[in-house]
Amino acid sequence: MDYLKRYLDLVERGMSDELSAQSRVVSPHLYSIVKQYIGAGGKRLRPCLLLACCEAVGGDAESALPAAIAVEMYHNWTLIHDDVIDHDDFRRGRATGHRLGALLGTKDLGLEGDIADDYGQSAAILAGDVLQARATEKLFELQGFPDAVVLSLVREMTGSLTVDLLNGEQLDVEMSHLAFEKIDEPKISGMMLGKTSALLRYCASAGAALGCGEPLEGCDIARDLGEFAALCGLAFQLKDDLLGIFGDEQRIGKPVGSDIREGKRTLLAYKALASCDAKERERFLQIYGLRDAGEADLELARQLLSRGVEATQETMESCVSLALGILEKLEIPSDSARSKLVAFAESMVARDL
Amino acid sequence: MDYLKRYLDLVERGMSDELSAQSRVVSPHLYSIVKQYIGAGGKRLRPCLLLACCEAVGGDAESALPAAIAVEMYHNWTLIHDDVIDHDDFRRGRATGHRLGALLGTKDLGLEGDIADDYGQSAAILAGDVLQARATEKLFELQGFPDAVVLSLVREMTGSLTVDLLNGEQLDVEMSHLAFEKIDEPKISGMMLGKTSALLRYCASAGAALGCGEPLEGCDIARDLGEFAALCGLAFQLKDDLLGIFGDEQRIGKPVGSDIREGKRTLLAYKALASCDAKERERFLQIYGLRDAGEADLELARQLLSRGVEATQETMESCVSLALGILEKLEIPSDSARSKLVAFAESMVARDL
Repeated sequence: MDYLKRYLDLVERGMSDELSAQSRVVSPHLYSIVKQYIGAGGKRLRPCLLLACCEAVGGDAESALPAAIAVEMYHNWTLIHDDVIDHDDFRRGRATGHRLGALLGTKDLGLEGDIADDYGQSAAILAGDVLQARATEKLFELQGFPDAVVLSLVREMTGSLTVDLLNGEQLDVEMSHLAFEKIDEPKISGMMLGKTSALLRYCASAGAALGCGEPLEGCDIARDLGEFAALCGLAFQLKDDLLGIFGDEQRIGKPVGSDIREGKRTLLAYKALASCDAKERERFLQIYGLRDAGEADLELARQLLSRGVEATQETMESCVSLALGILEKLEIPSDSARSKLVAFAESMVARDL
Repeated sequence: MDYLKRYLDLVERGMSDELSAQSRVVSPHLYSIVKQYIGAGGKRLRPCLLLACCEAVGGDAESALPAAIAVEMYHNWTLIHDDVIDHDDFRRGRATGHRLGALLGTKDLGLEGDIADDYGQSAAILAGDVLQARATEKLFELQGFPDAVVLSLVREMTGSLTVDLLNGEQLDVEMSHLAFEKIDEPKISGMMLGKTSALLRYCASAGAALGCGEPLEGCDIARDLGEFAALCGLAFQLKDDLLGIFGDEQRIGKPVGSDIREGKRTLLAYKALASCDAKERERFLQIYGLRDAGEADLELARQLLSRGVEATQETMESCVSLALGILEKLEIPSDSARSKLVAFAESMVARDL
C-alpha cells in the first residue's frame, strides 16, 4: 500500500523506539514474545489509519505517532491471547507467543513436552497482559494536546473499546460451539463489529480527535470517521475469512485450514451452508469444527465453502460502498488526504494478505 | 479486621455498583467469571489500604472510592490469569475462572471433557482481560480531583505497576523451573516485590496522592507510604507461603498442597532446604514440584518445610518492623489513622487466612 508509505516509515521508527524502551524494563522471555509480534511487521493497518485520519482533518501525523504505536500494540496484545485461545502455532510465518515461549523454556530452562508447552502458554498470557497495559500507557506520550484529549483517548481505550472487542472475541468462541441453526446474519455481524470493527473505529476516531485537538466525545468528525472505519472493518473481516480458506498459505503466514478446524461461524460458512443440499450439509457439518480434519476433509470443506464466496463478496462490497458514502459527506480539506482514505477502504477488498 | 470495617462497608457498596454496571455491558459468561472473583468477598485488603492511606494524610475516603474499587478489580484480574497459569481449580472455596468457564460451557453450550476445559480457559483469559481494562477505566470515575492527579494514577497503573507485577509473576513461574542452587534470597525477594508488593505500594501511594490532592510523582508522603506498604507486602507474601503449606484448607479455600506440587521457590522452601542433610535434600527435591505428588509425599514435604518456618517468621517480622519504622517518621495528623496503619502492618503476620 504505497499511499501509506510515509505513515509506515513513521510507524516503524516509533515502534523501534518503543521496543528499545521495553527491552530495558520487561522480563526477557516476555519481551521476546512482545518483540515477535510488534517487531515482526504485519500490515500496520491500524496505526496508518489513525495517522491518515489525523491528517484528513488537518492535524499533524507526527504529533499523533504515540497513539498510532499504542493502537498497534493494543492490536498485538489481542493477537497474542487470540493465538493461545485458537491454539495457532504460526502467525505471519513465525512462531506464535505460546510456541515461542515453549521454545524459550526449552532453550533456557531445559523444559520438555507438556511442561514446556505449559510454560509457553503462561508466558504468552503474561506477555499479552504487559502489552495491553503498555498500549494504554503509550497514550501518555502524546505531547502538546490538552489533558482532556489524552484522557478521552485513554478512557475510551480502557472502556468501550476493550469491552466491545472482548465481547466480540467471546462471541466468536461461543458461536463456534453453536449449531448453525442457532446463528443468523445479525449475530455474525455483531461478532465482527466487536472483534474487528471496534479497534478500527477507535483508530479513526482517535486520529481525528487528535487532528482536531478535541476530546473524542464532542468531536463529530471523529464519530463519522469512526463509522467509516467500522464499515471498513466489516469488509476487512469478510476478506480475512475468505483468505483464511482460499488464500496463499505462504503469503498469509498461517495454515489455511485452521478456520475449518476451529469451526468458525463466518458469513462465508453460513452462506455456503444455505446453498448445500441435505447430503452436502451433513458432510459439511461433520468436517467443520473437526480438530483433526485431514487434507481430504479440508479440500471437500473448501469446495463446499466456495458456494458462499459470491454472497460474501457482495456483502463486503456493500460495506465498502457504505463506508465511501459516509466519507463523501464529510468535509475533508485536502484532496490527497481524502483519496488516501478512499484507497484505504478499497484496499479492504483488493488485498491478498 | 474490625478497624477496617467502615472501609469494608464502603468497598462492598462500591463493588456492588460496579457489578451492576458490568452486568449491562459485559458478555454473560465473562461477567459470571468476573463476578465470581470480585463479588466473592476476599479480604479486600488492597482497597482498604488505599482508603486508610487517603485518610491518614487528611483526605476523604469516600471521594477515593473509585480508586479503591479499581485496585480490587486490578488484583482480581491478576488472580484470574494466575489461576489459569497455576491450574488451580479453587479459590476462596469457589471454582476458579477457567473451572467456572468450563461449567458454563457445559451448561449452556453442551460442551464436554477437553472441549469444555478449553472453552473455560478461553473465557478466563478474556474475562481477566476485560477486568484489567476496566480497572484502569474505573479511575476515571474519580470526581473533584485535578486531571493531573487522575492522569498520574492511570499512568502509574498501566506503566510501572503492571510491568513490575507481571515481571514478578513471570519470575515466579521461571524460578519454579530453576534448580535451588541457582536461587538466592535476593532473587526470591525480587520476585515478591513484583508479584505482591508492587500493588500494595500502588494502593498506599494512590490513596495518599488522592488524600493530598497531588499527582503521584511529586508527593513525598505517597512515596513513603508506598515504601511502608511494599514492606508489608513482603510480610504478607511470606505469611501466604506459610499458610499455603500449614494453613487450614477450609479457611483459605484452596488445596494446601498446590505450592508443593507447583514447586514454588519460596523463602520457606529455600530456608528449609538449607537445613536438610544430603538424604533429606534428595527426598525433598524428588517431591517438590511433582505435579501428582500423593498425600504421603505432601506430608513428608510438609515436615521438611517446617524447618524453614522459624527463619521465615523472623524475616516476616523484620519486614513489619521496617515498615513500622517508616511509619513512625511520617507526619500523620490523626492518631486514629496512624493506629489503623499500625494494625494493618501487624495483621500481615497475625492473620490466619
